[in-house]
Amino acid sequence: MLAWQALLPPLVADLDLGAGNTPLIAAPELTKARGVTGSVFLKDESQNPTWSHKDRLNYCTVSAGVQVDAPGVVVASSGNHGASAAAYSARAGLPCIVISSADAPPAIYNFIQAYGAALLPVPAEFRWAIMRQVVERLGFHPVSNLTPGGHTGHPFGPEGYKTIAYEVYSQLKRSAPDVVMAPCGYGELLFGIWKGFVELRELGLTRHVPRIIAVEPAGRGPLHRALATGKDVEHVAPGATRAYAIGTTIGSYRALLAVRNSGGDAILVSDGELQTAQTTLARMGIWQELSGVAGVAGLLRSPDVVGDGTVVCILTSSGFKDEGLSYEVPVPLEPAWTAIEAALHNFDIY
Amino acid sequence: MLAWQALLPPLVADLDLGAGNTPLIAAPELTKARGVTGSVFLKDESQNPTWSHKDRLNYCTVSAGVQVDAPGVVVASSGNHGASAAAYSARAGLPCIVISSADAPPAIYNFIQAYGAALLPVPAEFRWAIMRQVVERLGFHPVSNLTPGGHTGHPFGPEGYKTIAYEVYSQLKRSAPDVVMAPCGYGELLFGIWKGFVELRELGLTRHVPRIIAVEPAGRGPLHRALATGKDVEHVAPGATRAYAIGTTIGSYRALLAVRNSGGDAILVSDGELQTAQTTLARMGIWQELSGVAGVAGLLRSPDVVGDGTVVCILTSSGFKDEGLSYEVPVPLEPAWTAIEAALHNFDIY
Repeated sequence: MLAWQALLPPLVADLDLGAGNTPLIAAPELTKARGVTGSVFLKDESQNPTWSHKDRLNYCTVSAGVQVDAPGVVVASSGNHGASAAAYSARAGLPCIVISSADAPPAIYNFIQAYGAALLPVPAEFRWAIMRQVVERLGFHPVSNLTPGGHTGHPFGPEGYKTIAYEVYSQLKRSAPDVVMAPCGYGELLFGIWKGFVELRELGLTRHVPRIIAVEPAGRGPLHRALATGKDVEHVAPGATRAYAIGTTIGSYRALLAVRNSGGDAILVSDGELQTAQTTLARMGIWQELSGVAGVAGLLRSPDVVGDGTVVCILTSSGFKDEGLSYEVPVPLEPAWTAIEAALHNFDIY
Repeated sequence: MLAWQALLPPLVADLDLGAGNTPLIAAPELTKARGVTGSVFLKDESQNPTWSHKDRLNYCTVSAGVQVDAPGVVVASSGNHGASAAAYSARAGLPCIVISSADAPPAIYNFIQAYGAALLPVPAEFRWAIMRQVVERLGFHPVSNLTPGGHTGHPFGPEGYKTIAYEVYSQLKRSAPDVVMAPCGYGELLFGIWKGFVELRELGLTRHVPRIIAVEPAGRGPLHRALATGKDVEHVAPGATRAYAIGTTIGSYRALLAVRNSGGDAILVSDGELQTAQTTLARMGIWQELSGVAGVAGLLRSPDVVGDGTVVCILTSSGFKDEGLSYEVPVPLEPAWTAIEAALHNFDIY
């Protein structure tokens, strides 16, 4: 990310863990599945220091914390955001407080605590109130929303996400794609990507800004609701979804701005559609967290909304972070060819 | 890796998942801890498509399988190698059989199966015999050792690892480091890195080849034994170790060649030393699997063996793959400042 320093808030070089510079992978299977003209590419953000896109955000926000001499960093998150903030805080030598709910997948708690963060599990609805107290009483630097409203994330977060736009532009041989599809919770990711492409246009490097398409879990979908009603984003009911990383009940003004200004859209996908997309990608060699495949799920669901042209789907996070993991250990087979043959029959291989 | 195609076996471009191009991270904390002159850098191989160095190997070996029209791929592994082979096989549209033991961490079985591989857990000592049967009866392309001897891994595997040497050379502004330290099981990784630097020297790009230092779990250590006795590698007793990814009881001729020819060495580290290295790295923002930090554990244990100069430690794999993960979910705290304050006292933060 330091390569783009001139276009970003000041980064602390010593905090660099290698965020960014993730591959753009051609996906001929998905190109074919769409039935329209154009190519599909996947931007694999699981190939980051803590194996999600959040590292781009936290490199910027924790750098800001260091630069204002904050005594520590605080974040409300039960997943990738918290662990990534913990990693960058550790790198900076700052204590980190992660205020989580107690409903994340078990491996995630190992993940957050590995970096030495103070993990404070609290009832979900109290997360923001407690975070504000940590900010007010201890002076810790907040790197996520300070309110349940979704509009008060750290302003430098989307600045980090801008680098996705810059990289895609470089990887597509100095051109912008026609469409970018991204999983959408609060929508900071897609706002950042949109802003990055707008800047490239302002700099005279590209003529157009891609249509930004947000993909939300069908049980919730505050951005989809705002677009459908023409209103601002409002809280929606907390419908059931297993896509815990993007299952927010509110979007942000910034996300709405990115989608409206780019002529984009919002697509709702069910958990079943997310799972299909997850399996489809894994069978292409790319294993992602359920929430992380929402862009692809949206593409498979609504190729008509996406339309023709070059499409980039952002994949946000490794499959290891999923709540669907089983912790069962397999029973050994008898080491005879007959038993092996029978097992292979079940796998439809032999 | 395609950028280095001229120096590698033929790669199938369509299989590219973005392996390689991992960051080289400065580690001033470790430079200081050594007490000698020179700098320490970390090559973070967890930022690969399946979050380990094995992707470099499997991109080459599965490409070979495709090029000989193999009907499938077979691998004996209960960890990163198996999952990575499964991912590249999936990308190639080839069935993959992973012959595993039943003692890997539970999350690993999800990992391997996500890519659609046929997972065959068998008693550990039968893995190679069954793998040979799969090769002989089904004609599947083998991408790991065909014998328990450790000398019969796919010849293109270390060719993939060579790209680590090429990248380090580029990242150090066209120079070779003085020492490379790597976790060592069969030693294909360190042989490949050594070969890469030898080639750079042959090409006239660098004057010297780094000393290659293998770090093995103290309970086993076949390479250390061979160096100490001046003999070839022989089987050692299966002493206890939790570093399951490198806990082999045999090394390889190739590894011995790399260490001897480069004037390197082998260092044994205990599980406790591995754990200290793991925690040290995590508190620098880098969370790796226990086996993956062996290079750093060796550096911390024996700075005298390592000596002066620029040292690159290879970190091989994400902390999510560790067997030490707990699957307990935390109990929520009471959402009152007094409870938060008490919890923070325990973390020594407030």
